[in-house]
Amino acid sequence: MPSHVNLAVSNLQRDKDRLIKITYFFTFGDLPDIVIDAKGLLVAPGFIDVQINGAFGVDFSQCQNEEKMRKGIGNVARGLMKYGCTSFVPTIISSGIEVYQKIPILFHSFISWSSYFNYCKGVHVEGPFIMPSKRGAHEESHLRVASSGFSDFAMVYGLNSEGKDQIVKIVTVAPEVEGVLDSVEDLVRAGITVSLGHSSATIAQAESAVEKGARFITHLFNAMQQFHHRDPGIIGLLGTTRIPRPYYGIICDSIHVHPNSIKMAYDSHPAGAVLVTDAMAAMGLPLGDYTLGDIPVRKVNDERVEVIGDGRLAGSVITIDACVRNFRKFTGCTIVEAVEAATLHPAELLGIQNIKGTLNVGADADLVFLDDDLRVVKCFIAGEEVDI
Amino acid sequence: MPSHVNLAVSNLQRDKDRLIKITYFFTFGDLPDIVIDAKGLLVAPGFIDVQINGAFGVDFSQCQNEEKMRKGIGNVARGLMKYGCTSFVPTIISSGIEVYQKIPILFHSFISWSSYFNYCKGVHVEGPFIMPSKRGAHEESHLRVASSGFSDFAMVYGLNSEGKDQIVKIVTVAPEVEGVLDSVEDLVRAGITVSLGHSSATIAQAESAVEKGARFITHLFNAMQQFHHRDPGIIGLLGTTRIPRPYYGIICDSIHVHPNSIKMAYDSHPAGAVLVTDAMAAMGLPLGDYTLGDIPVRKVNDERVEVIGDGRLAGSVITIDACVRNFRKFTGCTIVEAVEAATLHPAELLGIQNIKGTLNVGADADLVFLDDDLRVVKCFIAGEEVDI
Repeated sequence: MPSHVNLAVSNLQRDKDRLIKITYFFTFGDLPDIVIDAKGLLVAPGFIDVQINGAFGVDFSQCQNEEKMRKGIGNVARGLMKYGCTSFVPTIISSGIEVYQKIPILFHSFISWSSYFNYCKGVHVEGPFIMPSKRGAHEESHLRVASSGFSDFAMVYGLNSEGKDQIVKIVTVAPEVEGVLDSVEDLVRAGITVSLGHSSATIAQAESAVEKGARFITHLFNAMQQFHHRDPGIIGLLGTTRIPRPYYGIICDSIHVHPNSIKMAYDSHPAGAVLVTDAMAAMGLPLGDYTLGDIPVRKVNDERVEVIGDGRLAGSVITIDACVRNFRKFTGCTIVEAVEAATLHPAELLGIQNIKGTLNVGADADLVFLDDDLRVVKCFIAGEEVDI
Repeated sequence: MPSHVNLAVSNLQRDKDRLIKITYFFTFGDLPDIVIDAKGLLVAPGFIDVQINGAFGVDFSQCQNEEKMRKGIGNVARGLMKYGCTSFVPTIISSGIEVYQKIPILFHSFISWSSYFNYCKGVHVEGPFIMPSKRGAHEESHLRVASSGFSDFAMVYGLNSEGKDQIVKIVTVAPEVEGVLDSVEDLVRAGITVSLGHSSATIAQAESAVEKGARFITHLFNAMQQFHHRDPGIIGLLGTTRIPRPYYGIICDSIHVHPNSIKMAYDSHPAGAVLVTDAMAAMGLPLGDYTLGDIPVRKVNDERVEVIGDGRLAGSVITIDACVRNFRKFTGCTIVEAVEAATLHPAELLGIQNIKGTLNVGADADLVFLDDDLRVVKCFIAGEEVDI
């Protein structure tokens, strides 16, 4: 919970990765190890972005370029700090198999930055087991079916068989694609969060996937069957009473989704809202031509990126702090509720709410200080202030 | 609020229409004038249905047949009691002008029954100022534009100029039809509740209508532009923060709208939910052929009525008590919340919440006793039990 306090941390614990655990928040009387005067700013956990394709000229889906990626990943992690983003899950769009084989390189490049900056231990693969008709900017030639079930997933992504320290943390799949629904349970067993998206699934198909263990919806509303009142499709999962409702990512930039739609989703299922940027390489850079995977795209204004030639939306260029501000404005929710949609909820989705996304005792000291307009003033990673 | 109580009413007041005011609910010690042992049943206000086209073989849109209507209206009012419906607003679909001219006959037939049964003082005219592409079962040849603004409405419906004791209580209009948006303020001034429906309005058009005074949505989801996340249309009014959100009628029969869609609407705007049956002449009667206005329709099973020939939905055959039960099941709301969607909310919509839709002191003693499954066991009109 963010609140106006003087931040005080005691009983510091440093582990070998230099993460600092918050074990105590000073309130009355006791003497803390460190006192940081927040000067009336709001103190919140650092933001977590579980769907980000790239930023600052780096496109995670081009991870086969090792040299570029080793250099770029740090620039991204470093650059996101000024938006209060202290953890993120690099996201890779539907790609050729040679790209997936390089994911460990992306991952280990990322790890190498962890002594300075923070990270989530894995990547989000969006596709290629998705529906051609709902592929959005994804390249149709990369899309696949899973005729052999889980083994197709294992082959394409290079999953490890035990499910321990799985580099792939989130998969976005269309449950109606051949073999996908029957693979959900195996994916979950392998330690992967299954998300539904780029799909024309009916509500019946979507509910089946959730019953088998899917726990997330990828950018709700975008690239899925339009809501119809008699078959609300994946969107209708927000109204189910039969089964636990999944978390849902939402791109809160007023380009991808109308503000009223965002408020309706939030009011339907407030505890499931997860703000995602879906940002791509052009985020933080000037207007011009970029790539998303191997697709040429153009940043046409400060809010919109299109596939060159056909004008389809190709990810976003919004920052996570702007998502939080928009979300509060669009939904009329409280500051705490807006912040939780970018902290606590994504942490719960990833199962790391004991260390990320909260200010609870024992959590990592990834913090953001915000002014009353929710603009980022200071950012702390592992208890140390970073230059933003 | 319904609750398990022994109903006790004291200080009875009878007015010339034989309405009995509840002025006191017995709880401890005091001596009531009447004690009715509810035997552990739930006691709730009688249900109010603001959109009902007919029932028991009577079609309100055929009100030009005076003899049939005088006889029929009482049968309907009488018949609805067994479903706990103690007040309703007869609804007339898009019709020729000769039908609207007979509305006073319908109304006065209705009034003549008021010494025995209860009523709402007016009718709901659904159309003819609606969108041809969203007309549902309405006859296209009856549809009109309002090129001359309010005077077109006044001419068609035979509105009185002062707005006092207006027989037309609710109008369903499409705000994008020529002249309609500019007539909303005049309609409101004339004492009429303006409802949006049978419309392909954008969210911008819908919000403009609400800003001008529209306060209701006619059977949300049905016969309106499908929800699109980037322009959610009339449905998107449930997510607006700029202006007060309207009430919305909802047909809770699992034919017209998927249960998950109903839950999403309810969770988005719980205080606005108004259960309506949209029932037509075949409600309460066997399968077979009937009319809705001048359209031949067929009751094909216990839940579905279609236009003969093209299979479009043509109103419903659900009863209001079944709507309450479905609503509770679909949304997971409490009994109180389900009952309020058929009592307090429609009363607020009609501006009669001081006398109808509540058990407050001073309200009319229209009561329904329900078992724990929300089935109607007893019904009281104006303080007297009716045979159901």
